[in-house]
Amino acid sequence: MTKIDDHSVGLVEAQCAEFNEPLQLASGRTLEQYQLYYETYGELNPSASNAILICHALSGNHHAAGFHSYEDSKPGWWDAYIGPGKPIDTNHFYVVSLNNIGGCDGSTGPSSINPETGEPWGPDFPRLRVRDWVNSQARLADRLGIECWAAVIGGSLGGMQAMRWSLEYPDRIKHCVVIASAMKLTAQNIAFNETARQAICSDPDFSEGHYQQKDNIPRAGLSVARMIGHITYLSGDGMGEKFGRQLRSGTFEQGQDEPVEFQIQSYLRYQGEKFSTSFDANTYILMTQALDYFDLAREYNHDPVEAFKHANSKFLVISFTSDWRFAPARSKEIADALMAAGKSVSYAEIESDAGHDAFLLPNQRYETVFSNYLKGVAQQIESKQHAQ
Amino acid sequence: MTKIDDHSVGLVEAQCAEFNEPLQLASGRTLEQYQLYYETYGELNPSASNAILICHALSGNHHAAGFHSYEDSKPGWWDAYIGPGKPIDTNHFYVVSLNNIGGCDGSTGPSSINPETGEPWGPDFPRLRVRDWVNSQARLADRLGIECWAAVIGGSLGGMQAMRWSLEYPDRIKHCVVIASAMKLTAQNIAFNETARQAICSDPDFSEGHYQQKDNIPRAGLSVARMIGHITYLSGDGMGEKFGRQLRSGTFEQGQDEPVEFQIQSYLRYQGEKFSTSFDANTYILMTQALDYFDLAREYNHDPVEAFKHANSKFLVISFTSDWRFAPARSKEIADALMAAGKSVSYAEIESDAGHDAFLLPNQRYETVFSNYLKGVAQQIESKQHAQ
Repeated sequence: MTKIDDHSVGLVEAQCAEFNEPLQLASGRTLEQYQLYYETYGELNPSASNAILICHALSGNHHAAGFHSYEDSKPGWWDAYIGPGKPIDTNHFYVVSLNNIGGCDGSTGPSSINPETGEPWGPDFPRLRVRDWVNSQARLADRLGIECWAAVIGGSLGGMQAMRWSLEYPDRIKHCVVIASAMKLTAQNIAFNETARQAICSDPDFSEGHYQQKDNIPRAGLSVARMIGHITYLSGDGMGEKFGRQLRSGTFEQGQDEPVEFQIQSYLRYQGEKFSTSFDANTYILMTQALDYFDLAREYNHDPVEAFKHANSKFLVISFTSDWRFAPARSKEIADALMAAGKSVSYAEIESDAGHDAFLLPNQRYETVFSNYLKGVAQQIESKQHAQ
Repeated sequence: MTKIDDHSVGLVEAQCAEFNEPLQLASGRTLEQYQLYYETYGELNPSASNAILICHALSGNHHAAGFHSYEDSKPGWWDAYIGPGKPIDTNHFYVVSLNNIGGCDGSTGPSSINPETGEPWGPDFPRLRVRDWVNSQARLADRLGIECWAAVIGGSLGGMQAMRWSLEYPDRIKHCVVIASAMKLTAQNIAFNETARQAICSDPDFSEGHYQQKDNIPRAGLSVARMIGHITYLSGDGMGEKFGRQLRSGTFEQGQDEPVEFQIQSYLRYQGEKFSTSFDANTYILMTQALDYFDLAREYNHDPVEAFKHANSKFLVISFTSDWRFAPARSKEIADALMAAGKSVSYAEIESDAGHDAFLLPNQRYETVFSNYLKGVAQQIESKQHAQ
């Protein structure tokens, strides 16, 4: 039985919101109806001014904090940062975390039934852009009676959603928190994503995306895809410190012909296999394409300064020193563009050897910076409440 | 028709040396007989003191310079550095370049016939260590009448062979040139290799390594493996400069549902596919395992200084600033250990944005450093010849 402490949001339950108004997508296609799985932590205040939206990254979902049952061995994916007394403090904020459309954890996505055919969407699910998520999230805000978010917060792909929010709905977001993200992927980022997709698509069990009808999953391909991803989420130094050249089995003694297995090999294979049975391959492809396609300033003459002039929110931008997938240089570009656009921006580069994954992990300075920023946000809200 | 200029070694022909004395391998197994494909460029001098051995990297072979026919569209893999007037100057040196055992370009390897079974070795080919290559190369030296190499030169996995030469045959090597290499792989290196192997082994066409008997190749798996490798051979900045986010097809205009293809995607896929039909999957696995297993100082109490005390040669160590697969820090470790062991070592870190591949590509400073070092070697040899 899991020990749930005072800093946990405790037992939580996912909710499902059904939307029957068609959602017009950037691709020109329309999602006639869809559902969003979401969780909420904390209480919405009477003026609905203390709501925070959490946007998830590539493989995230709505379960960001707390436990679904006492039997859960692990809490939600961002439990270190969401809860009473934590940086995203549920004593002050009403936190909304959803599974995005295209996802595979309850919200409408490739594994859902296409009402037109009665079959799973599979590879025919509409290609999505970050702005489609933002639009679907705005509908969820409407449903929950949230006119304006106190903050929209996201790491990695989630940070892209937060930035897009600041441009698409400038009057519905007070603070935008962008962590370990970028205004657009580099060629190297795209190359890793493409290789991962290639691993999935070339697995015969992928069946061109129609694996569900064959009651099958492209386990091997998705596993390799995850291994590729996983390497890029860690830093070389961090991996070296944790695994080095430690052996799991075998010996290097001469005269020994058994194969040798390094700890890092079995760790990576385990991660790949675990992921391959818990995540949907079509969703993985869709999410990595949305990452590749995102380019914050594309519709603003490719000028980030011009883009950010449309924002009304204040910004917190955070990066991690050893993150080479979304390097600090990418975050500095965001901060520089914001400053040039005359926006209020706090930027912190956090020392860490945890690579891109650092945004999910405990880290004293990260917690302090994040906490202090959101304490300020909470104070503004509460002083306004008192003034009313 | 290819234009062969004055700085080319011109038309060359591979030769084959058969060895019938059993070769004892580090694994305890024995290769009863084997053949080595090799090429030579330049002339051996009467005292056989001007011979240089080229050790190839992961996917290299014996064809390092010149052309096999006038129809060849490309010369050997290190043609930029081997030839008359080039750094490895065939006006002065007799250059020997071989395909290592375990390879797939003529030398005995997994795709050769196992004389005991009459079938291709496939996955039953003995696992090899770098020292096995060095021992087989020493036999080739005997065959060619070369008692002592003027230099043994290699990049990447080739540099590991050069270093091993300096420890195993200290009196048979005068100069050791180690380019873009390391004394052992990092956990991240091993992780990339493991993911590549996993891509190959999980391809159903791999048939646990017995694909030849099925007249098949694990094309998809080997292609993904090469894509992974290829990303790590280039630098992020170099890839960004060359490809950026340029599109090959499709458009990002809203209302367009066609998939978008970036140039980097099609480039990588092309590289993967080309490789998958020209390289042997079992060889790829064997070579990456040899890379993973190599640890220069393992038998010397894990102390590189103690290891290098056994060397008698002089050293040139070269690294490239943007090489993150074999980072300059790894080369500095080599140079530091050599100095601490009291050896003569020249170390140059070359500015380049070409990543690990830089060791194969034209680069002014690299050429100058490399040339000057080998000019010194040639002068020593020639002044000795005159003195005799």
